[in-house]
Amino acid sequence: MKTIAMDAMGGDNAPQAIVEGVNQALAEFSDIKIKLYGHEEKIKQYLKANERVSIVHTDVKINSDDEPVKSIRKKKEASMVLGAQAVKDGKADAVISAGNTGALLAAGLFVVGRIKGIDRPALLSTLPTIDGRNFVMLDLGANAENTAHHLHQYAILGSFYSEAVQGVAKPRVGLLNNGTESSKGDPLRKEVYELLSQEPAVNFIGNIEARELLNGVADVVVTDGFTGNAVLKTIEGTGLSIFSALKSAIKDGGTKAKLGAFFLKDSLYGLRDLMDYSSAGGAVLIGLQAPVVKCHGSSDAKSVYYTIKQVRTMLENQVVDKIVDEFSKKNH
Amino acid sequence: MKTIAMDAMGGDNAPQAIVEGVNQALAEFSDIKIKLYGHEEKIKQYLKANERVSIVHTDVKINSDDEPVKSIRKKKEASMVLGAQAVKDGKADAVISAGNTGALLAAGLFVVGRIKGIDRPALLSTLPTIDGRNFVMLDLGANAENTAHHLHQYAILGSFYSEAVQGVAKPRVGLLNNGTESSKGDPLRKEVYELLSQEPAVNFIGNIEARELLNGVADVVVTDGFTGNAVLKTIEGTGLSIFSALKSAIKDGGTKAKLGAFFLKDSLYGLRDLMDYSSAGGAVLIGLQAPVVKCHGSSDAKSVYYTIKQVRTMLENQVVDKIVDEFSKKNH
Repeated sequence: MKTIAMDAMGGDNAPQAIVEGVNQALAEFSDIKIKLYGHEEKIKQYLKANERVSIVHTDVKINSDDEPVKSIRKKKEASMVLGAQAVKDGKADAVISAGNTGALLAAGLFVVGRIKGIDRPALLSTLPTIDGRNFVMLDLGANAENTAHHLHQYAILGSFYSEAVQGVAKPRVGLLNNGTESSKGDPLRKEVYELLSQEPAVNFIGNIEARELLNGVADVVVTDGFTGNAVLKTIEGTGLSIFSALKSAIKDGGTKAKLGAFFLKDSLYGLRDLMDYSSAGGAVLIGLQAPVVKCHGSSDAKSVYYTIKQVRTMLENQVVDKIVDEFSKKNH
Repeated sequence: MKTIAMDAMGGDNAPQAIVEGVNQALAEFSDIKIKLYGHEEKIKQYLKANERVSIVHTDVKINSDDEPVKSIRKKKEASMVLGAQAVKDGKADAVISAGNTGALLAAGLFVVGRIKGIDRPALLSTLPTIDGRNFVMLDLGANAENTAHHLHQYAILGSFYSEAVQGVAKPRVGLLNNGTESSKGDPLRKEVYELLSQEPAVNFIGNIEARELLNGVADVVVTDGFTGNAVLKTIEGTGLSIFSALKSAIKDGGTKAKLGAFFLKDSLYGLRDLMDYSSAGGAVLIGLQAPVVKCHGSSDAKSVYYTIKQVRTMLENQVVDKIVDEFSKKNH
């Protein structure tokens, strides 16, 4: 039985969406316990589950505009910090929050702590491909700057995650670069290319270009936090912009277009579902001594449920233990 | 009367698409001359225009897999190099090619030459926004690495281009960063932020995030060549992936979906036109002593025509002269 600490007060739809997601997860998975951190009365309004769940009451929460490091140091009683502390103290096996991303990163680093040998934990997310398979990408912005050594470690972390959580055997690891030839890129990319070419722990397939990301050319895409952040936000922004333009086109297209949209509805929904990768769970701060996972701030109950499912898989398949093992064996 | 040198042999559809684009441009614009560089007989097969046009015959061309710098040095008689040389010799005012991008960059740098005071010319393109206005972004990959000083210059170059070619008064210049707050980013972004905050030649509006790019939050977006390349390719790749998924969804959706697509056809075409920003012309290598412009390798006659139109506007509004003026006055 694994215990997951949930920050019940983080995100736009807290605590309702969080608690409803917890209800669904507890009904589905009989092998997990949930500890909810937050305002007891407000949580109880939505809580249906009555076993394998407990509430730790607190009035304090970290706001979305709080300064990350300062807030987790000053607000020791905040729901998010209590959740991270429970992991540190061995009372929970993982922590999930939909709150302030920076603060969760700080809580992960300073409360939960890094795995020995890992320099800079990274944000990892699962992104969709048009063929319906997924890929994982890291770092998506835990760091503003990275060295070649960090990216070398990310290749290993991403590979372990893909294998354990996505069930991919020998995940194909690609380096995001400005061309596919081995000679491409800035000095950072060239150095990483060299390191990964000689790394037996990963199945390195070389450089990949951003144009090919959603075509499933790799199972794990490695990049620095600045580029990863820009690419992730570009994918999101472009998707949203196209759907919004499609909506306007239908609206401005008169009866004929509306009729068309009516008949196409199911196909358009199917497409939206494909692009809606919330079913892949939240963003993992990988490289820490336990799963620390960020739900999107606008998460609904469904995304919360899927994030719990994802964390359960991480615990079941012992991703963290496997990474600890790998990094204790060798000096990566 | 301005003269534009055209590499008739570059790109997937050369020389047909190039020459057909030239036919259209010459019919439309009575104030330009075109010099076509390439295989005379092949060019003549498609050439309809018979005044203000001349052909300079050559058998040599730069291939898409030629090594850029080496090829422009060795193949002095290649159609692309002859076009650049014509600009250098004052026989043409600008050069356009749909061929090897790296070779065109090299020809621009080593044959046409930089404007005095500009360290590293950048690739600039016009990208679409969902409201139908456009924005320009640079560097899109002329450089694998940039300093804060380069990005400072790009803000000025982009601003001059936006004003002269897009007709935007006081263009809003944004710095692509991993958050909007002034404190965000890696050391490079922080330094650029400081430089641009104190630069009277540009209307700096601060940091912008990649998620907002297509929403028209800025007229000029400044970034380093590595990130710009990744973001541009992500926009292209995401757009293509969504349209291809939409196509499959319609195909797999049976009669109902096909009926819907039929009624929605005009709206979908409208949307495609919005995303098809070929009407904004090619990618400009900005910072050189004359317009050097890259058409997409898969350009059709229409894109070639629009690129000629774009170059004509650049020449008419004297973008290069204005940049030369600005950089001779001050030490940016």
